[in-house]
Amino acid sequence: MSNIVDKVDVLIIGAGPAGLTAANCFNGSNGLRVRVIDKKSSTVQTGKADGLKSISLEVLDTFGIGDAVRNESQRVEEVVLWEPNGQGGVARSMTIPDRVPELRKPREMTLDQGRIEHHMATNLIRKGNVQISWETQPVDLQINHQLIEDPLAYPVTVVVRSMANGNACIETIHARYVVACDGARSWTRKHLNIPLTGDLTDSTWGVMDAVPKTNFPDIRKVCVVHSAKGTVMAVPREKKMVRFYIAMDGPDLDVTAALNESALTVDHVVDAARSIFHPYTFEVGEVIWWSAYQVGQRVADEFSKEDRVFLAGDAVHTHSPKAGQGMNTSIQDAYNIGWKLRFHLEQRCSRSLLTSYEQERRPIAQQLINFDREYLELFANPNLEFEGFLAAYKTAMKFTTGIGIQYDPSLIVESPVLGKTGIVATALSPGMRLPDFQMVNQADGVPTTLYHRLLMNGQFRILIFAGDISKQQLFRRYLKFGEWLTRFSHKNEKIEAITIHSAERTSIELMDLPEVFRPWNDEDGWDYWRVYTDDESYHDGHGKAYQRCGIDADTGCLVLIRPDGYASLICKMEETIQITNFFEGLRPIDSGVITHTARL
Amino acid sequence: MSNIVDKVDVLIIGAGPAGLTAANCFNGSNGLRVRVIDKKSSTVQTGKADGLKSISLEVLDTFGIGDAVRNESQRVEEVVLWEPNGQGGVARSMTIPDRVPELRKPREMTLDQGRIEHHMATNLIRKGNVQISWETQPVDLQINHQLIEDPLAYPVTVVVRSMANGNACIETIHARYVVACDGARSWTRKHLNIPLTGDLTDSTWGVMDAVPKTNFPDIRKVCVVHSAKGTVMAVPREKKMVRFYIAMDGPDLDVTAALNESALTVDHVVDAARSIFHPYTFEVGEVIWWSAYQVGQRVADEFSKEDRVFLAGDAVHTHSPKAGQGMNTSIQDAYNIGWKLRFHLEQRCSRSLLTSYEQERRPIAQQLINFDREYLELFANPNLEFEGFLAAYKTAMKFTTGIGIQYDPSLIVESPVLGKTGIVATALSPGMRLPDFQMVNQADGVPTTLYHRLLMNGQFRILIFAGDISKQQLFRRYLKFGEWLTRFSHKNEKIEAITIHSAERTSIELMDLPEVFRPWNDEDGWDYWRVYTDDESYHDGHGKAYQRCGIDADTGCLVLIRPDGYASLICKMEETIQITNFFEGLRPIDSGVITHTARL
Repeated sequence: MSNIVDKVDVLIIGAGPAGLTAANCFNGSNGLRVRVIDKKSSTVQTGKADGLKSISLEVLDTFGIGDAVRNESQRVEEVVLWEPNGQGGVARSMTIPDRVPELRKPREMTLDQGRIEHHMATNLIRKGNVQISWETQPVDLQINHQLIEDPLAYPVTVVVRSMANGNACIETIHARYVVACDGARSWTRKHLNIPLTGDLTDSTWGVMDAVPKTNFPDIRKVCVVHSAKGTVMAVPREKKMVRFYIAMDGPDLDVTAALNESALTVDHVVDAARSIFHPYTFEVGEVIWWSAYQVGQRVADEFSKEDRVFLAGDAVHTHSPKAGQGMNTSIQDAYNIGWKLRFHLEQRCSRSLLTSYEQERRPIAQQLINFDREYLELFANPNLEFEGFLAAYKTAMKFTTGIGIQYDPSLIVESPVLGKTGIVATALSPGMRLPDFQMVNQADGVPTTLYHRLLMNGQFRILIFAGDISKQQLFRRYLKFGEWLTRFSHKNEKIEAITIHSAERTSIELMDLPEVFRPWNDEDGWDYWRVYTDDESYHDGHGKAYQRCGIDADTGCLVLIRPDGYASLICKMEETIQITNFFEGLRPIDSGVITHTARL
Repeated sequence: MSNIVDKVDVLIIGAGPAGLTAANCFNGSNGLRVRVIDKKSSTVQTGKADGLKSISLEVLDTFGIGDAVRNESQRVEEVVLWEPNGQGGVARSMTIPDRVPELRKPREMTLDQGRIEHHMATNLIRKGNVQISWETQPVDLQINHQLIEDPLAYPVTVVVRSMANGNACIETIHARYVVACDGARSWTRKHLNIPLTGDLTDSTWGVMDAVPKTNFPDIRKVCVVHSAKGTVMAVPREKKMVRFYIAMDGPDLDVTAALNESALTVDHVVDAARSIFHPYTFEVGEVIWWSAYQVGQRVADEFSKEDRVFLAGDAVHTHSPKAGQGMNTSIQDAYNIGWKLRFHLEQRCSRSLLTSYEQERRPIAQQLINFDREYLELFANPNLEFEGFLAAYKTAMKFTTGIGIQYDPSLIVESPVLGKTGIVATALSPGMRLPDFQMVNQADGVPTTLYHRLLMNGQFRILIFAGDISKQQLFRRYLKFGEWLTRFSHKNEKIEAITIHSAERTSIELMDLPEVFRPWNDEDGWDYWRVYTDDESYHDGHGKAYQRCGIDADTGCLVLIRPDGYASLICKMEETIQITNFFEGLRPIDSGVITHTARL
């Protein structure tokens, strides 16, 4: 066995959706060395998670792969509830449009986890600066506590065993940071002795991806079928597949309630489904994947060790898959720590940024568990009550769209009160994610959406809601802001300022705007993707961005937006001092201590 | 040199957009052997064509790759005209939205030809039944005239030379049919002594893909800039590229008018552009590709030899690239002959189908040349007149959207008069292509568009505009049609019947419709993609399909649609005899003559 040594800025353990999300946060990061390891030999081939909420697709948009994933996915348009019909069968009781009007787009799509991973992994290969090592797993991990606060150190040492190409090989990896996305049975979590708090529920569930042959009329919709024999949840999938979740302990299923996970066979699962769907026919053609599990509802006590090793995704929270939140929450976790590590390492800003990861994400996991518990209880209730279900469904929106999530004030989320601003964007707030509105490019008239534009580059951005700049007074205010921005940009050249004005597009000439709003580059000229308008497009309607954000076109505002789309601060066009102060707080580590001697 | 022999049903010469389109028509065709050869070593890397009209994107939709191409493309939203300002510079005179309201989507996108080819070639590899041989070119082609009408023969013998992997190799390919898509300098056309009729114009043009550095305000729009110094046309492209067409013989350009194609350098082209854009600055960053050419406006006298060798695309028509019609017309040519060959070979229908290729496509090429001549004259006119330009622009729509194209009656296009139908679809006609309307799937509520649904499978389809089948009378009529369809489907099992009703989606249950409208398959159950409604979708508005087709919801109609989206016949729901008669005319070759001895 050879003894190889590697040094990386970030080591990511696990190449599932969470690990690959964290890795994609480093796309285009020059100079940082990022490595992903996974014990599997490739992306997953079948099964596992399959639901992508709009917020996850927006994350994929910022990686440049959202539309490719959408092209392959099955959209979900309706949720249908069935209940016992009192004659031994079931009857449709309610059809709910799967629609959140505020989103103005589908809330949910489904696709095989392996395909989602495929797009994420391919994107890393295309961008070229992140390496994935398959068939490689950690066998030891040590943190050198003396070096924790040393900005140049590689305090984490991970020994990994690789079986790539059939040759066993031990490698020692020195990492500045580690992100562990190694799943519900996380090696890293166990190795670090981080407890999971919570319970295994009593329920055993069968889960199956199959092509059903049935005359059940709602098989291509999300449906929850509650019969006297038990409960099934079905989710339509790409091609002709359907994902089924089946409670294996219904009151008098044909299969015995005593069955446990390991004794279950796929025939038990199919039989249970058939008995629940009765009197509709139910057979399965191809079974692509199936599994059985007991639901654990648990959250890790810590999401990080010393802010040098971070855990994300299933490694720190497990719950039922039925609310479709596992992969989505994991992606959000990884996106959160991913950009923070990149920003910290690239900008050399203080490590205190990193403490916000656990502060922001652990409460979300806890809320999710509580929600999941209620959701499961609803499921377990043989007399499913519609009002209750609808209420739970509406609560689910909170997680699924990100609309209801609000992070607490911190180094990177200004307190609304401290801002002393008065409310200039009634539908926005620091700590909340911006809606994905459509806007029209000033230069070419092509509409895009916010998150298609905000490609992940690890940077904060200033969104300038300048209002109707065809009005002289507002244009003068915009020019004045431009003077400040010119000074600011000298010191913060990487921070993009993006104008979203609300004048008629044809009333504005891009070349009449000050250069700072459409910066020059000696290599390729002006930047045509910095100025947008909230105007009618030729082919795709009006985005109503101002209306959706609650911004008055005469007042306008500035929104400082984090790399992950959450607002850091919102202020008036004149209150630039707030932005200056914000970046003071994030100032780089004193460059005096930087030398090129790394300490291991 | 080895002497290899191969036998193929179809040999396609040339793997450009035309050849790859023809090849993609055979995707999923079991039992047919199709081969593509090309002397290049791969798809093109830079330059050449770049404009994709909506009709071409619809073709790509039927191959399943339209959205992938859209994702990479630059949309065109506006066309802007500039004219001399009388002071030695230029002034904007007119901005025309690049919009055809009937389309309800963008009319045009631009993308590097190589990327379009990439998606088409990758699709062939994914589908697996068409082989591409690069670095392989024809050196001889002979047609055995005695075997022309023999349904089992391989009457075309093509000798090819391959240089793949550096080894020269001669191969003899026996083909039932050959499609030559080998470009403007077509080896096949010359070898078969088919004359091109028409002229080379006097104009020499420079064409260039570059990243411009300019303060010209419309550089991200399609613009035609007519200065006292000459004319430039600029087309925005993906990334930061712009395609420039520059007349190299303007009245007093800094470069001499005497310059000919071979003496031209890229600096001449850039200098000419700079002098036309004056007083705006104009420099170029990266020049990705450039070329010079004289415009030839010529059409081949024949598009086929004996209906055994067909020529398509630039091999049979050349014209200026400025109307953006070269690649688009080539794709339509190849799509036309591609499906006809597949249908003939798979269904063993008579060869007379194949004569319709030249009948349909040669007049289009001729119309295109005439249009191109007028378009070029407009360009050459130093006093560009807006009304004239606008008129030419509107004429261009005819080609660019396919809306204005109407093929003559033939074996596969019923005469509207012979139909004796009365008009049941006021906006449709036999020989015209259907608009790409949105429709909502009955089973899952997901909206799609017609051409996303009509994946190329080489088959005719029956579109059943059944009207509002929530009304008893119309439902009874639909049931009655279903009885006929059941009988018809026994004999024509491959022909899909697709219902597009106009009832509210929630008022209809798919499982209440007769089985023939949602056929059963023992392997994977019911077909959920046969019944659609012209109803409001949850997230994407209303497709207004009936309105766009001019179909009354009470009358309804049947549209027999060709594999390429053109209507063959349109009749009332009761006039099923017309469909029966149509397929009688296409009946297979008498199976009595079929043996398994192929004659070479």
